[in-house]
Amino acid sequence: MLAAVRAHGVLSQAEIARITGLSPASVSNIVHQLADADAVELSPGIRGGRRAQEVRVRSDGGLVVGLDFGHRHIRVAVSDLRFVVRAERRVECDVGASALSALAVAERLVGELLDEIGTTRCGVRAVGLGLPAPMGPDGGTLAAWPILPSWATIDPARHLAKRLGAPVYADNDANLGARGELYFGAGRGVSDLAYIKAATGLGAGLVVAGNVYRGFAGSAGEIGHLTIDEMGPVCSCGNRGCLETMVGAPYLLELIRHSHPDVRTVEQLVTCALAGDGGCRRVVADAGRHIGFVAANLCNVVNPERVVVGGDLAAAGDLLLEPLRSAMPRYAVVTVASTPVVAALTGERAEVLGALVLAVEQFQRRHDQAEGADVPADDPGREVPSGDDAGVNDPGRDPAGRDSARDSAGEAVRDGSGDPGFRTEAGLANGHHPAVSGPAPDLGPAGRSPVSGPA
Amino acid sequence: MLAAVRAHGVLSQAEIARITGLSPASVSNIVHQLADADAVELSPGIRGGRRAQEVRVRSDGGLVVGLDFGHRHIRVAVSDLRFVVRAERRVECDVGASALSALAVAERLVGELLDEIGTTRCGVRAVGLGLPAPMGPDGGTLAAWPILPSWATIDPARHLAKRLGAPVYADNDANLGARGELYFGAGRGVSDLAYIKAATGLGAGLVVAGNVYRGFAGSAGEIGHLTIDEMGPVCSCGNRGCLETMVGAPYLLELIRHSHPDVRTVEQLVTCALAGDGGCRRVVADAGRHIGFVAANLCNVVNPERVVVGGDLAAAGDLLLEPLRSAMPRYAVVTVASTPVVAALTGERAEVLGALVLAVEQFQRRHDQAEGADVPADDPGREVPSGDDAGVNDPGRDPAGRDSARDSAGEAVRDGSGDPGFRTEAGLANGHHPAVSGPAPDLGPAGRSPVSGPA
Repeated sequence: MLAAVRAHGVLSQAEIARITGLSPASVSNIVHQLADADAVELSPGIRGGRRAQEVRVRSDGGLVVGLDFGHRHIRVAVSDLRFVVRAERRVECDVGASALSALAVAERLVGELLDEIGTTRCGVRAVGLGLPAPMGPDGGTLAAWPILPSWATIDPARHLAKRLGAPVYADNDANLGARGELYFGAGRGVSDLAYIKAATGLGAGLVVAGNVYRGFAGSAGEIGHLTIDEMGPVCSCGNRGCLETMVGAPYLLELIRHSHPDVRTVEQLVTCALAGDGGCRRVVADAGRHIGFVAANLCNVVNPERVVVGGDLAAAGDLLLEPLRSAMPRYAVVTVASTPVVAALTGERAEVLGALVLAVEQFQRRHDQAEGADVPADDPGREVPSGDDAGVNDPGRDPAGRDSARDSAGEAVRDGSGDPGFRTEAGLANGHHPAVSGPAPDLGPAGRSPVSGPA
Repeated sequence: MLAAVRAHGVLSQAEIARITGLSPASVSNIVHQLADADAVELSPGIRGGRRAQEVRVRSDGGLVVGLDFGHRHIRVAVSDLRFVVRAERRVECDVGASALSALAVAERLVGELLDEIGTTRCGVRAVGLGLPAPMGPDGGTLAAWPILPSWATIDPARHLAKRLGAPVYADNDANLGARGELYFGAGRGVSDLAYIKAATGLGAGLVVAGNVYRGFAGSAGEIGHLTIDEMGPVCSCGNRGCLETMVGAPYLLELIRHSHPDVRTVEQLVTCALAGDGGCRRVVADAGRHIGFVAANLCNVVNPERVVVGGDLAAAGDLLLEPLRSAMPRYAVVTVASTPVVAALTGERAEVLGALVLAVEQFQRRHDQAEGADVPADDPGREVPSGDDAGVNDPGRDPAGRDSARDSAGEAVRDGSGDPGFRTEAGLANGHHPAVSGPAPDLGPAGRSPVSGPA
């Protein structure tokens, strides 16, 4: 219900009942619970010539935190439940080197941002966390994943939940990027989307019928490891000739090691290409062709309505996208060859914005469950093929369901409270999709423009 | 609601209310409408020590027809709404040569089967139709599809609806095969499934969260045209080196043209391989490896719970599946490399059984809409990423929504009635999934055993 109200800005109780399918009595009940919990505010208004009470989401109904771990950076954003970003920061960090160090940096960053906006962790309702690895259905990193070995033995969401004293929901970074673009970027109004993240590695987030599709084990969209050349170099995943061995950052930079010894990051490569450097343009264009090959084959399999390309490489704009688009009809069947391919609008913020969306979605979902009486228990329509399976790690509950402020290893929840207070709020939202019908959200302080826009 | 009752065999009204989330009053109302329309029957029973009225689907609540057009055959089945197959037949037919001829054969076959069980077209509630081509969201074949040129200029579902005087719903054959295996075969109990059909051509049907996923334009699962060799032979789709140019029937048969001049069909190839012929075994095994390459990459992208392999080639059993399974860890990331790969249980009947499922699903869906008052209009949980987009072609309604027994070209509906009578029945079923919870259906007369079972 919160989602419906946020999507429409302001609604009367009768409108909420019509949109959510809940009975007027249920709506009234929930609205008053939400109002008691300061999540919504009520004010008199006029609807269809009659007086009606209007319902708005309160800006001070709580905060969510988005965390995006890349291979070389951590980005954090704090927003309210209406997606007004209150503070945001990015730091360079070798995330792969040590999971514990990276998580400590993240915790410090979150604390700094909360200080900056004059609040404490107690106001944080939920945290969304992105990592560049497939996350299992239970939200833990998959122990067998060979790419981030220092992360393999811990459950980052659970670990961070203890550090932050708030529930943490984890997902793959490309899945978060897909959420970010779906809600705030080039995916708005699209129900079936493929988001391709081209950065240090390559990954895709698939949106099916408006929800991120994570697959049975949480690893849908692993396009970085599609086999392009069976006899190609051995990949970090253990197989040979994966797409990443052709367009992953180390491979692109290797191509210009001798000709451009000063270019050491994808960002620098893109800057040089945009400045007109021929060699760097060629590297970007060839990467575009290779990604286009995979995009075309992805479209054959999944047939999305639109392909959105994000990640550091996408900052090259049409230098990347034109060769990518040219590859589509060469490799896709005629029925999908003209699928639009566009640049991500939220640029390098796609993942952290998606992390905020995940946090709000899961916050609402928990309240759906807490308010379960209004939801038919067996309604099959509520099975959602999405991040609803993303990991939940509530520091206030251990896996056995007991309420505990300490985990089995005895590590204390940092703020001394196992319950950040979100259980006292009520909410009911069942999948209404702001991306389709809602007003554009405030994506934060002015001056944070997208890295790359559409042509 | 019909689906829930069929899935459980027999239910009390209280049980129906609990399962569907409808109010007891709504359930009572709908049950009595269904009973009036002879779709269900009521009888006294005992539930939890108390007397309760039991509700069963009537075997004489109507019939559905399933039609499967292959490249070289037409298969027809007639069943009641409980999926008890009453009659079934397969004929050889060069379906690609002339769409109109093939449709005429299909019409004659349906008539013969209905005669056989002593009924007429008036009892047919809906027809499911499968074709080996991607079907657009509106159910018409895509005009631009280059593979079945004689079918490109007509809308087969609409055409057949006029011939049969019943609504016809069309979908791609692999999507129907996925439905067949999901409900009655190796996909039972699975919510995320990839069904690979390996026959004259190759295609896949994807099941996402229990529903067939058709993609934005209806062409999801077109794995036959994934590019395997960019410099390979030109494919019928216009691109080069597609999977079909390596494992499509013409290519497999070409491999043994000189060594086995008598082997002229995939069926014969499989028979020889099963009989121990070395050359035929090699051809089947290499096909398995190539399909395994694609299956592994498909699993990277979609991450299904299970892969089911059907089609003529799958009759080779482990001769095909062992090399296919061996390819999985070579090309899939570690998290999906162990996805189970099994043979279709319903064999060559998967598509026609899926056509029956489609027909019943769409029959129920129409009644959901007719009974819309009981379904919250905006309930987002009812958006289904599935064959619910499959084409509807109701002979009783032209595209402008007027009621007409004749189409704009003046072609009369053959039985002289634009309304086959299904509008007089009531039904409400919203997505309950017999495959997950229901008892095994009667798949027809004894002796029709699956072509290939699991190892």
